[in-house]
Amino acid sequence: MEKTRKFLLEESEMPTRWYNIQADMPNRPLPPLHPVTREPIGPEDLAPLFPMELIKQEVSTEQYIDIPGEILDLYRTYRPSPLFRAYGLEKAIGTNCKIYYKYEGGSYAGSHKANTAIAQAYYNKMEGVKKITTETGAGQWGSALSFACNHFGIELEVYMVRISYDQKPYRKLMMNTYNATVIPSPSNLTNSGRKILEQFPDSPGSLGIAISEAVEKAASDPETKYSLGSVLNHVLLHQTIIGEESLLQMEKAGDYPDVVIGCFGGGSNFAGISFPFIRENLLKGKKTRLLTIEPASCPKLTKGKFMYDYGDTVGMTPLLPMYTLGHNFIPAKIHAGGLRYHGAGVLVSQLLKDGLVEAESKLQKDCFENGVIFARSEGIIPAPESTYAITGAVDEARRADAAGTQKTILFNLSGHGHFDLTSYEKYFAGDLEDHELTDLDIEKTLSEITF
Amino acid sequence: MEKTRKFLLEESEMPTRWYNIQADMPNRPLPPLHPVTREPIGPEDLAPLFPMELIKQEVSTEQYIDIPGEILDLYRTYRPSPLFRAYGLEKAIGTNCKIYYKYEGGSYAGSHKANTAIAQAYYNKMEGVKKITTETGAGQWGSALSFACNHFGIELEVYMVRISYDQKPYRKLMMNTYNATVIPSPSNLTNSGRKILEQFPDSPGSLGIAISEAVEKAASDPETKYSLGSVLNHVLLHQTIIGEESLLQMEKAGDYPDVVIGCFGGGSNFAGISFPFIRENLLKGKKTRLLTIEPASCPKLTKGKFMYDYGDTVGMTPLLPMYTLGHNFIPAKIHAGGLRYHGAGVLVSQLLKDGLVEAESKLQKDCFENGVIFARSEGIIPAPESTYAITGAVDEARRADAAGTQKTILFNLSGHGHFDLTSYEKYFAGDLEDHELTDLDIEKTLSEITF
Repeated sequence: MEKTRKFLLEESEMPTRWYNIQADMPNRPLPPLHPVTREPIGPEDLAPLFPMELIKQEVSTEQYIDIPGEILDLYRTYRPSPLFRAYGLEKAIGTNCKIYYKYEGGSYAGSHKANTAIAQAYYNKMEGVKKITTETGAGQWGSALSFACNHFGIELEVYMVRISYDQKPYRKLMMNTYNATVIPSPSNLTNSGRKILEQFPDSPGSLGIAISEAVEKAASDPETKYSLGSVLNHVLLHQTIIGEESLLQMEKAGDYPDVVIGCFGGGSNFAGISFPFIRENLLKGKKTRLLTIEPASCPKLTKGKFMYDYGDTVGMTPLLPMYTLGHNFIPAKIHAGGLRYHGAGVLVSQLLKDGLVEAESKLQKDCFENGVIFARSEGIIPAPESTYAITGAVDEARRADAAGTQKTILFNLSGHGHFDLTSYEKYFAGDLEDHELTDLDIEKTLSEITF
Repeated sequence: MEKTRKFLLEESEMPTRWYNIQADMPNRPLPPLHPVTREPIGPEDLAPLFPMELIKQEVSTEQYIDIPGEILDLYRTYRPSPLFRAYGLEKAIGTNCKIYYKYEGGSYAGSHKANTAIAQAYYNKMEGVKKITTETGAGQWGSALSFACNHFGIELEVYMVRISYDQKPYRKLMMNTYNATVIPSPSNLTNSGRKILEQFPDSPGSLGIAISEAVEKAASDPETKYSLGSVLNHVLLHQTIIGEESLLQMEKAGDYPDVVIGCFGGGSNFAGISFPFIRENLLKGKKTRLLTIEPASCPKLTKGKFMYDYGDTVGMTPLLPMYTLGHNFIPAKIHAGGLRYHGAGVLVSQLLKDGLVEAESKLQKDCFENGVIFARSEGIIPAPESTYAITGAVDEARRADAAGTQKTILFNLSGHGHFDLTSYEKYFAGDLEDHELTDLDIEKTLSEITF
């Protein structure tokens, strides 16, 4: 009866530095290339979009970067986040494995996105930036950044993928409550948006398109910078506090994970929980497996190609060396909006290439099924994105049970699903569809990448 | 910079008993009366509706009641809940006061209602109950009970006030996700519902009507019990864990409140945070003021009459001695659905009568204004109900500032507003109306109470 469910840290135990995996990677990633000249870019090429401190973090090889006091102070509104032993889920699926999850949904934004939103808004403020543009998929990133920008006195304009804008009106209202302007993307406010709308007047949008719009807007106004919620190295860096806390909490639990799991859109929540464990593998001989879970409808890690590609649809961003389905790939309208992105962040791409992380893909309906099991057994209704991590954990546990082994599994529950309940409604009504890219689809998709 | 924002308790520090204020009240409340005979009722009169253990708690005069292990175990999914120092809010309103809040929105249900939902479902399960009916206003109570019933293998049927059913569809979907059936009230499934619909086909419903329906359904089926989310003594009892934790956390903060504030619908979140502080006043000579905040559109504590009245609209429940606007009073359609109830729980009514607690009323628009200030300064978007407590705290701080004093204020942030964002949308659009009952309105309302 007296089993501890929740492993907490005091504010005083909260890590005070981020872990920079670039210091320890066996192979450093290839440099980003200029979108036009195709030469490696320098800090000055990024300066129109980002404050210099974030550009420095993007290329830093320091092993640790201290978290400034003002960021720590805002982190303390919701951090340290709890780590739970999932007794309810274990019982519900009848596993002998021990399942833990780190819960990032307790932040004001309801997801891990707050960790980098606060940091990015802070560094922009320190360099006098007055306005930021950004994109958002499901809206988790946009709401995270809205509060942070408002806190630091920065105006925010959010380009929200239209399908999510329509499906998730509450996320828009949340951003408005935090004082941000929200625009459905593709919009007619940018050349990028107009170009897409000419070709596809009913475009549901995608993260790639929304990024093009937000980047274009920032690049064309010297007073405005741009902010990205995933993919980039500095974004992943800011998320590593998740894994650093998890290490301390697993120690309190007297346990250590055999496998660490995160869902995968651009890489930030997965990187957040996994990079500190990769460090333990690399430097201390630990043997934890790191497992990303992506949608079968957007399988860049399991079926994409490792190549230089744009981060956005229109081709405004530098070329990044990554696993990709092609910057002009428009993913099916699954409800995990945050996972509808054509490419994988550079760091995770390199780690996958080097065999330091693994990838699996899952189908939407299976993920909702496990999401409901989780909601009813653990109480928390997960974000559709997070149901992919849950499904990764459940499948891993079932495989271990079938093999007669007992594993310790840790996954990142990246956010709650309070704004995604219409997706659950559709799941219950039998209205969800699965989308899985076949090898032929992939061949076609990759052959269509144009520069 | 190094200010502690969050005062946590370990699971091992969580209180293991509820505080029963009936043991220490200077004047015990008058007994409930049978709705027909008007004689004091005994346990056997309540047995068709409630399991015996809850009936015992309803009349117990034991000072403390041990919390069973299975309840503690589920409490641990979200308890102990954090207590915050509201540095952001203090700065935003420019006060010299110290403001703390206890945050109950981190529970699976997003409000304090989980504390009694788990307890009630547990005691029903222990006595072999297979099905429960209940009412819900804004849906906080219904979603809390849905998860708890599903956990203990009990079927649940929820009568949801129609105006909230329409305004807050996500709450319904949340209950469905937790496996409950939700029916808009008034419905044509009960005599009570049909009676109301005959008179008022467009009735927005009220908690009073929904209670009539749920009670009727339970009373007419020997296999079914009924569960109430506020008002009753045993419900308030289960909430006292909020105040017990707050006492320990204020000690960790090295502070003690001059005033403790809760919003007021039926009394449960206010009782939860305040009763343990009233004990400290009564037994240890502390001088904390206990302040309830109710809507000006439903002002039973500030303008109602202390008398015997029904708990429901139709007159199915026992007569309770309480402050009331009359059981046939239908409150205006404010967005704080959980505060739209005609009466005040018996314990708080008696305490108010005896001068041990105080009451103030507030207008809806002022509350939303403070809710937005709170969201932007503390991050958490509050439930409309909780904005009344915030407004109580803000007004109290401003009065203290004007008087040149520095007070320590603690309020109960009973829940988050993730499912209430359309209310915020209306507030921003200028579409909210204020409703304040005048003395003439009150005179008319009270004169219309019929038995």
